[in-house]
Amino acid sequence: MNSTFRKRGLSFGMALALLVSLVPAQAAWAKSGKSAKYVILMIGDGMGIPQRMATEEYTGKKLVMDTLPAQGLTTTRANDRFITGSAASATALASGKKTNINYIGVDENFTPVATLAELARDQGKKVGIVSSVSIDHATPAAFYAHVKTRKMYHEIDVALAESGFDFFGGGGLKDPQGKKSKAPLGDAIAMARENGYKIVSDKKTFMNLSPRDGKVIAWNHWLQDAQALPYAMDMGPGDITLPEFTGKAIEMLDNKEGFFLMVEGGKIDWACHANDATASLENNIAFDKSVQVALDFYRKHPADTLLVVTGDHECGGLTLGFAGTKYASHFDVLSNQKVSFQKFTDEILETFKNRKASETTFANMKPIIQAAFGLKFEGDAKADPMVLKPFEQEQVVDAFNRSMNGVLAENKDPELYILYGGYDPLAVTLTHLLSQKAGLGWTSYKHTGIPVSTSAIGVGSDRFNGYYDNTDIALKIMAIMGIEAKVHLAAQ
Amino acid sequence: MNSTFRKRGLSFGMALALLVSLVPAQAAWAKSGKSAKYVILMIGDGMGIPQRMATEEYTGKKLVMDTLPAQGLTTTRANDRFITGSAASATALASGKKTNINYIGVDENFTPVATLAELARDQGKKVGIVSSVSIDHATPAAFYAHVKTRKMYHEIDVALAESGFDFFGGGGLKDPQGKKSKAPLGDAIAMARENGYKIVSDKKTFMNLSPRDGKVIAWNHWLQDAQALPYAMDMGPGDITLPEFTGKAIEMLDNKEGFFLMVEGGKIDWACHANDATASLENNIAFDKSVQVALDFYRKHPADTLLVVTGDHECGGLTLGFAGTKYASHFDVLSNQKVSFQKFTDEILETFKNRKASETTFANMKPIIQAAFGLKFEGDAKADPMVLKPFEQEQVVDAFNRSMNGVLAENKDPELYILYGGYDPLAVTLTHLLSQKAGLGWTSYKHTGIPVSTSAIGVGSDRFNGYYDNTDIALKIMAIMGIEAKVHLAAQ
Repeated sequence: MNSTFRKRGLSFGMALALLVSLVPAQAAWAKSGKSAKYVILMIGDGMGIPQRMATEEYTGKKLVMDTLPAQGLTTTRANDRFITGSAASATALASGKKTNINYIGVDENFTPVATLAELARDQGKKVGIVSSVSIDHATPAAFYAHVKTRKMYHEIDVALAESGFDFFGGGGLKDPQGKKSKAPLGDAIAMARENGYKIVSDKKTFMNLSPRDGKVIAWNHWLQDAQALPYAMDMGPGDITLPEFTGKAIEMLDNKEGFFLMVEGGKIDWACHANDATASLENNIAFDKSVQVALDFYRKHPADTLLVVTGDHECGGLTLGFAGTKYASHFDVLSNQKVSFQKFTDEILETFKNRKASETTFANMKPIIQAAFGLKFEGDAKADPMVLKPFEQEQVVDAFNRSMNGVLAENKDPELYILYGGYDPLAVTLTHLLSQKAGLGWTSYKHTGIPVSTSAIGVGSDRFNGYYDNTDIALKIMAIMGIEAKVHLAAQ
Repeated sequence: MNSTFRKRGLSFGMALALLVSLVPAQAAWAKSGKSAKYVILMIGDGMGIPQRMATEEYTGKKLVMDTLPAQGLTTTRANDRFITGSAASATALASGKKTNINYIGVDENFTPVATLAELARDQGKKVGIVSSVSIDHATPAAFYAHVKTRKMYHEIDVALAESGFDFFGGGGLKDPQGKKSKAPLGDAIAMARENGYKIVSDKKTFMNLSPRDGKVIAWNHWLQDAQALPYAMDMGPGDITLPEFTGKAIEMLDNKEGFFLMVEGGKIDWACHANDATASLENNIAFDKSVQVALDFYRKHPADTLLVVTGDHECGGLTLGFAGTKYASHFDVLSNQKVSFQKFTDEILETFKNRKASETTFANMKPIIQAAFGLKFEGDAKADPMVLKPFEQEQVVDAFNRSMNGVLAENKDPELYILYGGYDPLAVTLTHLLSQKAGLGWTSYKHTGIPVSTSAIGVGSDRFNGYYDNTDIALKIMAIMGIEAKVHLAAQ
């Protein structure tokens, strides 16, 4: 479809713009007064209610998002499955339309749907998209691309280059040259440059950007995994954080016509897939600091701004109680973890495996585990909660042997899959044990179907109280922006 | 303390009434108009957000409680522990005061606190207390008793008899004669009769009760476990259901001065402790039918009634996703379970164990398991989700052997505790496996710390939107009832 448009010399985004009908919102909102000039929608990917509560207990203070005056519950199901995925949920949040798993910006019949970002652009607002994962990942893509599967990264990258949006920041692009595409459309980065985008990837240049620089696509110099920002806990001072991307986006977008900004905390989800509580909560903290940045902007323009914070679904089946700890909770033990499961797997474990065979013993691994996760193999388990009990040590030894023998966890043995999912057996066993010592449980390596919570402040924010579906979030925002799109666009 | 009051010839409840200061509510509510004449507070014990969502998916329709116009999120922590218990949470919901684990109707210094039920009584309203567990269990007790530990059943029973409340219905009393008390206070049932209560325990008499019968204490003829009503799924036509207790309570309490009614769905929690999804969801359905009964009353008196539905805490660490089923959900398989874990343990397993030793083989147990839970030991596991995979069958065999050998699960082996909690190893293994096949996970045999949701309709119900603490529920209701109690009462 993108290629059809390109043959006609039209970008898909531009063609879509021609097809979108903007009509004044009819509903009650229109009666009550002015529409929101500045709209910031923040999505914690995989940030369910357990993740939010766990983060509060971990830090000992309320999240900024949980202090916003409007608080609601949001159901997340996809059109074709109870447990949603990020593509279907982002399409719902961006367009108000339920769609199928893996569909991006199209309904269940593959008809493109108008998104909040496109509608804002066509209202004359500036538009920004920020994510801590690759900027063509499902959640950000659903605001500017219209493709049948989230895996069409090349087509998504081209749609980004032709979106006409003003700011993209966070992670990188997964297939700008179409190396994985059967029908490459060209170099999306070159297209972006042609379309006036400045590409930035070092922190100093990034921090010095000003609105004079025009349109920008910016990513961090170090993209840890699959073109994503590093986990917050793995970042150093040279990395650009999610709050910094958020602040710069607002600075670049701020103008008298207003703006629409979507910010995704994408690696909360990835850490939860891996059942890594510390990495998830530290990323949730970084996301909440981004909410603080947005809230600071709201405080300057309270009569013109709407800030909405939600999650797209829960991930991991996180619970705030574990059989082994009964009624007790010890969130403090999570801070013993010094690196994410990803850094542990990619760097620490990889270095260990590359040592001489005679050195890759479990005895040599023990101090490495203690340094990275705080888990101990000697001592009195009753006096020191970090000391592993004999049956827990057996789990670690089994996982170590499987990891060293290269037994892939993502295999056809359903019993091993329950133990390790698709992760390195040792890394996931260690994050499981640390979670358990904190009094946290996990039941899945995928998303789950519990409702998420949604928080809001500003123009029209009362509408975000109550219990509603994720599609309603987009429809409420459209109404508050004073626009109502025909959800189905004629796709030619 | 009760005995001190009794020596003075005063019931504790009456003494408390003298000490309560009723003052008009000062807050915004007072300005906005009339106070609620009829107040119904419904508490799903252990009914967290996962329990509510799972019940909706299991039945395929929205719960009545989830259709109420006001919906909020509620934190549940106790004064001295993140994961609360039913005594501390019920005291919070009844009085607006945080207290310690196991404390009933007293603050952390053991100072009695006035409860909604007592305040309503002292306003001249009628008062009713309904529960599906024993009527002296922590949740109902926190509305009429003031004791340092929920285990003081005898003192609680005496407080009930002297409460002056109008209707108690549901489960029985655990220690009316003080057989487990060091200093028995007399026969609470005799005291209740002296105080004008009619005691009813057969369904026909119960259904024929009318306000002419005066004060009533009613329980079902069959109390399954610990003086509780049977699980909803184990009930027969001769049993009085929770919706029937609710309807009769409303009929008995309805009068021109108004009433306060508390209804607890107590066995949602007990089923979740045992990780029995079907028993929990079936009891959640019965609780929601009771909400419908209350809503029917609201519809007749919409300008005078406040209906609030909440949970006291989540239980079991229920999640709506399991590693083994990945993104799939199969809630329908839960309906294959025909008896609760309790009935399976008490009746079916007990009968089996009493057979001749030569007959108590696993081969003979297999058809019993299939009849009770639908789990199959033969067939194609890929074609029929009820067929147990080899590693699952091993779990069942291990649990069967432990059950037959009388290995108590509630033992000091922490590994076995994680597997079975305090339950019969076979029963809990079967409910775990059935949950897993449905795509549900459990992580604990105790409560967890995730917020619950709260729903409301009627006078002042807007106040129940948002994100607030469980203590706020009592304070909001007090304001809407036009009363504000001094939380600390002088205890003489």
